[in-house]
Amino acid sequence: MISSTSHLFNQFSSSMNKDIEGVNALIWEKIGSEIEMIPLIVRHIIESGGKRIRPLLTLMTAGHFLSSESDPKIIKLAACIEFMHTATLLHDDVVDNSDLRRGKLAARMHWGNAPCVLVGDFLLGKAFQMMVEVGSLTALQVLSKASAVIAEGEIMQLNATRNIETSESSYLQVIEAKTSELFAVACEVSPILYERSDQERVAFRSYGRAFGIVYQLIDDVLDYSGVEQHLGKTVGDDFREGKITLPILYAFQDGDASEQAFWKRTLEVGEVRNDDFKHAIFLLRKHSALERTVELAKKYEEEALDSLACLSHSSAVDQMKKILSYSLSRVS
Amino acid sequence: MISSTSHLFNQFSSSMNKDIEGVNALIWEKIGSEIEMIPLIVRHIIESGGKRIRPLLTLMTAGHFLSSESDPKIIKLAACIEFMHTATLLHDDVVDNSDLRRGKLAARMHWGNAPCVLVGDFLLGKAFQMMVEVGSLTALQVLSKASAVIAEGEIMQLNATRNIETSESSYLQVIEAKTSELFAVACEVSPILYERSDQERVAFRSYGRAFGIVYQLIDDVLDYSGVEQHLGKTVGDDFREGKITLPILYAFQDGDASEQAFWKRTLEVGEVRNDDFKHAIFLLRKHSALERTVELAKKYEEEALDSLACLSHSSAVDQMKKILSYSLSRVS
Repeated sequence: MISSTSHLFNQFSSSMNKDIEGVNALIWEKIGSEIEMIPLIVRHIIESGGKRIRPLLTLMTAGHFLSSESDPKIIKLAACIEFMHTATLLHDDVVDNSDLRRGKLAARMHWGNAPCVLVGDFLLGKAFQMMVEVGSLTALQVLSKASAVIAEGEIMQLNATRNIETSESSYLQVIEAKTSELFAVACEVSPILYERSDQERVAFRSYGRAFGIVYQLIDDVLDYSGVEQHLGKTVGDDFREGKITLPILYAFQDGDASEQAFWKRTLEVGEVRNDDFKHAIFLLRKHSALERTVELAKKYEEEALDSLACLSHSSAVDQMKKILSYSLSRVS
Repeated sequence: MISSTSHLFNQFSSSMNKDIEGVNALIWEKIGSEIEMIPLIVRHIIESGGKRIRPLLTLMTAGHFLSSESDPKIIKLAACIEFMHTATLLHDDVVDNSDLRRGKLAARMHWGNAPCVLVGDFLLGKAFQMMVEVGSLTALQVLSKASAVIAEGEIMQLNATRNIETSESSYLQVIEAKTSELFAVACEVSPILYERSDQERVAFRSYGRAFGIVYQLIDDVLDYSGVEQHLGKTVGDDFREGKITLPILYAFQDGDASEQAFWKRTLEVGEVRNDDFKHAIFLLRKHSALERTVELAKKYEEEALDSLACLSHSSAVDQMKKILSYSLSRVS
């Protein structure tokens, strides 16, 4: 059974509803601009089913250091991270020529590529402005580095994930940079802000990094196995866009010549016929490609849990474990 | 007679050759990446005739506060500013669908739009990383704000400069954001870094802001009057790309119905025939549109000079006056 992602979200946000509302309010405040197109585009993309998982991780990890009071600086950093993520989504849609984002028309289909590139730039600028307001040079350091690493990951992806002979390790290297890095810093900024020990900082960062990989791998699986309304994306999006993800790499590696020709035609050449998606699912099942991807995700789940072992007990740490297992339960 | 821009540059860089070399070395160091495409694209755009005017202004303004020794922090900030500028150029070419940049094939024509968007993002991330290394929160504040303002200016431009009925004041508002802001902060970071008085900071910033407007207006004029090899751009680029600049707005406002129809056909509809560029120049001359633009640039030159009046005498301030007048002399 597949759990709904909004269900997943509600499990955790109830306890921090006020803070998530604070993040949302800050987002709307900061995108206010005389130029009407900016809030229109940002609202379109942020409201189209985003789960706010990254800012949620920032709020959750901060809970390990805070008493019941929430901290405006953490709320600001959480909003920064959502801005960085949203900028990436806007640029991704342009880069991938995507028509759809989470089952809705992508912003670029409404407003064109040009404003999407520029509104992405605007959001990045605003994110850095907000980080500076928080005033932690160490947080600025890891967040600015993340910004460059994410872009590098996206550039790697241009080559790696359009080549069906990419290795598992190259694929993991790409998602570590393009997805995992932002999860890692979303978790790392709290111990940084509260000037905690290096050990704690490394623990939170490692948890976030491994969580990011789990999250991306499960997303890859759901694209071929999900129930649409629970996904926050449309099943088959990756296939239609010719995205080469880990399940595909497994099926390709184990496939015979005619199967390999099928993957090359549909994903590299981009020649997709009726029923190709069904056949793709058949091949993925034949080679247990989705199961193997889930197995790998479980290894990273263990890695994430191991990272937390050195921390003192807190309800925040409990929540961090729970959200990780919920993330995986989407495919269980 | 039109002075060469490289001549302009040499006039000033000889005295600060070592520092400009330091900026260049830092640029090449920071774009080093395992991903080969990154240095290739950056090298293509940075080496295609850029004048390094923005980092030069940072080095020059710093001279007002420094003895003969150069300062690694200033060199780093100068490189940041060139990175921010280069990121904008890469995104601009995608946004404008430009085939050429400074008379050479634009990077996107060699590598495609996707890597240009992403390498722009990478450069912005690197720029912020370098600013953080410098460690001045106030410099970070003005630079991150500038980054958002520039993007806002580009978004305004999407509307304003595709509408030939844009007013002079709307046009100036656009170039103040998209061009002038980076000149302003290029000059402002030195007094910030050396913790000088607000009066000095405002003086340098105002000088930079006015300089930026002069620079853009002269660039607009040169596109219709320049001698190609001296321009660093190809005469007629703006016209061919349908860019509506101030000289055009003047000629349109003063034109009769058939002239206005000509501008609408060529620039708004984008239907350009042989000899249209010649006719455009004829109309600009008829209405003294280039002269009027130069006149306006001269007003901003005065504003820039007035800003410097409150500063103590220094050879740096002399150079700042000189580079401003050289900038204007390109059309004299």
